[in-house]
Amino acid sequence: MVSVEMPSLEEIRKSRPSKYFGLERDVISLGLAESDFEMPREVKEAMISAIINGRYHYEMNGVAEFIEAARDKLLRVNNIPVEEGEILPTVGVMNAIWLTYRVLLKPGEHVIVVTPTYPPLIGRPKSFQAEVTEVKTREDGHLDLAAIEKALTSKTKIITICNPNNPTGTVYTREELERLAEIAVKHDLYVFSDELYENLTYDGRKHVSIASLPGMYERTVTAFGFTKTYGMSGLRIGYVVAEEKIIRLMRDENTGIVIHPGTVEQIGAAAALRKCDYYTDFLKNYLERVRNRLIAELNEIPGIFARLPEGTFFAFPDLSPLFEKDEEAAEYLLKEAKVLVYSGNGFGNGGAGHVRINFCSPLEIIEEAAVRIRNALMKRYNAIDKKMS
Amino acid sequence: MVSVEMPSLEEIRKSRPSKYFGLERDVISLGLAESDFEMPREVKEAMISAIINGRYHYEMNGVAEFIEAARDKLLRVNNIPVEEGEILPTVGVMNAIWLTYRVLLKPGEHVIVVTPTYPPLIGRPKSFQAEVTEVKTREDGHLDLAAIEKALTSKTKIITICNPNNPTGTVYTREELERLAEIAVKHDLYVFSDELYENLTYDGRKHVSIASLPGMYERTVTAFGFTKTYGMSGLRIGYVVAEEKIIRLMRDENTGIVIHPGTVEQIGAAAALRKCDYYTDFLKNYLERVRNRLIAELNEIPGIFARLPEGTFFAFPDLSPLFEKDEEAAEYLLKEAKVLVYSGNGFGNGGAGHVRINFCSPLEIIEEAAVRIRNALMKRYNAIDKKMS
Repeated sequence: MVSVEMPSLEEIRKSRPSKYFGLERDVISLGLAESDFEMPREVKEAMISAIINGRYHYEMNGVAEFIEAARDKLLRVNNIPVEEGEILPTVGVMNAIWLTYRVLLKPGEHVIVVTPTYPPLIGRPKSFQAEVTEVKTREDGHLDLAAIEKALTSKTKIITICNPNNPTGTVYTREELERLAEIAVKHDLYVFSDELYENLTYDGRKHVSIASLPGMYERTVTAFGFTKTYGMSGLRIGYVVAEEKIIRLMRDENTGIVIHPGTVEQIGAAAALRKCDYYTDFLKNYLERVRNRLIAELNEIPGIFARLPEGTFFAFPDLSPLFEKDEEAAEYLLKEAKVLVYSGNGFGNGGAGHVRINFCSPLEIIEEAAVRIRNALMKRYNAIDKKMS
Repeated sequence: MVSVEMPSLEEIRKSRPSKYFGLERDVISLGLAESDFEMPREVKEAMISAIINGRYHYEMNGVAEFIEAARDKLLRVNNIPVEEGEILPTVGVMNAIWLTYRVLLKPGEHVIVVTPTYPPLIGRPKSFQAEVTEVKTREDGHLDLAAIEKALTSKTKIITICNPNNPTGTVYTREELERLAEIAVKHDLYVFSDELYENLTYDGRKHVSIASLPGMYERTVTAFGFTKTYGMSGLRIGYVVAEEKIIRLMRDENTGIVIHPGTVEQIGAAAALRKCDYYTDFLKNYLERVRNRLIAELNEIPGIFARLPEGTFFAFPDLSPLFEKDEEAAEYLLKEAKVLVYSGNGFGNGGAGHVRINFCSPLEIIEEAAVRIRNALMKRYNAIDKKMS
């Protein structure tokens, strides 16, 4: 079995300046959405070979082998057959988010965003003078389709989902996506689906791209990336898939912002798609164990129920039983447990009271962090319990 | 003496898919602004070392060694002392152009752009609902300061220059920049200076950054890059320099568009600044010879006067004596000379009738192209001459 190297905390701390920015030496960072694992050897080799062989010049139409690899993967993995002109390489998924809202929205139009979710999915349409309604998921993290339908207005243009969901880890089922698709078709809407974490689905779940459902391709924009699940956050590369007329608008727009994403990154990304299923398979199996350990530890705390994330590398427990104010939980854990987690209130409606814990780390590190978190929260529980009695 | 490898036309054609896009095999491309020379060995080594050593993760504040190298170079070369927070790494100069206009301009404000110039410098402010006045340079390519002053309105916010100028090759003198600075100070304006070609100044000319002049730092935004003069167009990296409050706005904006430019590119760019003066010095001396050869050839054509470009790798001869319509010259040269050049009318006011010829190629290739151009234009001249007589 092929495995992936386990870095030490010291190595991680040194090579991830942003994940560990401003933290004291004894803090474990489970904050920034970044993998602690190095990227696949095949990606490194492809990039090095590109550099040695002079492949770092303009590629205005995208690097052909990247576009081809993405087409093959979209068919093989996502069941989305696309033409060359329906894929745009982007400077990571952030760039795809910006472009999608930019080309689809006019000022005054309305977007429904399923929350909690990745904050730019909520904030960006507002910056383009669109109106945003956040629709909370159900308690179990799945789509509240009745609430989505209720939020529709005559101005609604897009429904945005993040699937698998950052921060809840929810992997939407084919059935609920079919029902969402019905709504989109019935009301003639676009769906924008951020699928950056598509590789990480646990307990045998299968990721379903909503663009693969009947009638949906022409009304879906899907963003894919590499930065998280391939451990290459600083290589700014992803791709967005949509009908050609949309991609053409996005390409024109992006040419005037960045020209195009880096050629060497595109060549590395092609290798990730062609040669690295073993890597994401290993990561998925490994992180499932890490997840189980973390969640078991969290469920030791009285009054706290931590749901098993179905995908991604995030746990999103509700700690509100132990804290009065929104940001208190994350602050407390940094101070008492020496573990950095993110406060849930940044992730929109439904995030308050939660914390997001990034568990994309070696098991040993998550075990240490989980024990620290459990002990700190137990202390908190006992203090409250004492006060109550 | 250190030299730079001379690639064959076949190698260039293969490794520059965009420069040679859609062209027949017998065409020489002097169109797209791209160098035919490979990037410095030191940049390759730095990038490869970054990949091997796991340095490709998030760097939200910019890669420290890149920021440091840029600070040192700004002081040493540009005479601009800056703090860490006054530099933002960008996804090439295009990204810097977008950000500069985005954060400095409000709708309805007015920008004076000295033309001919790089087209996005003219087009981008319009896309942000600003008004643009193009002020033509003098016949010799230098600033027409009276015309600039005359174009000022009560809404004028920015004067934009490209120095050395793409496409005319003009290197603005200290004296004219001082006079431009006086205007900026007197009317409380910003100057936006695109200095992507700073390394290429001929005949002993010295590049002067307007930000280095007294009273100008706080009212100047300067964009620098690597993609052209270091032969690395597909590595999307540059940097922009301004007061901290401006850089802070730009960083916030860019975080929501691309997060940041690639980490590996930033590490490569640091090596370019630290170790590769020999490379740009070689290129400058070499291209001065190439330029001389090209211009001599063009001046063989009766009725045509081609000015020696003072910097950059562009010649911008006025071919209007031989052609009636704007785009005719470039079309004719592609067909008759099998040389791709760009039509001058894309470069704004003052560009019409000209063509831009990119001479950043091995001497042998430019010699071949120049002879082809001369023969084709002689043929044209003779045909006109015959018709006239």
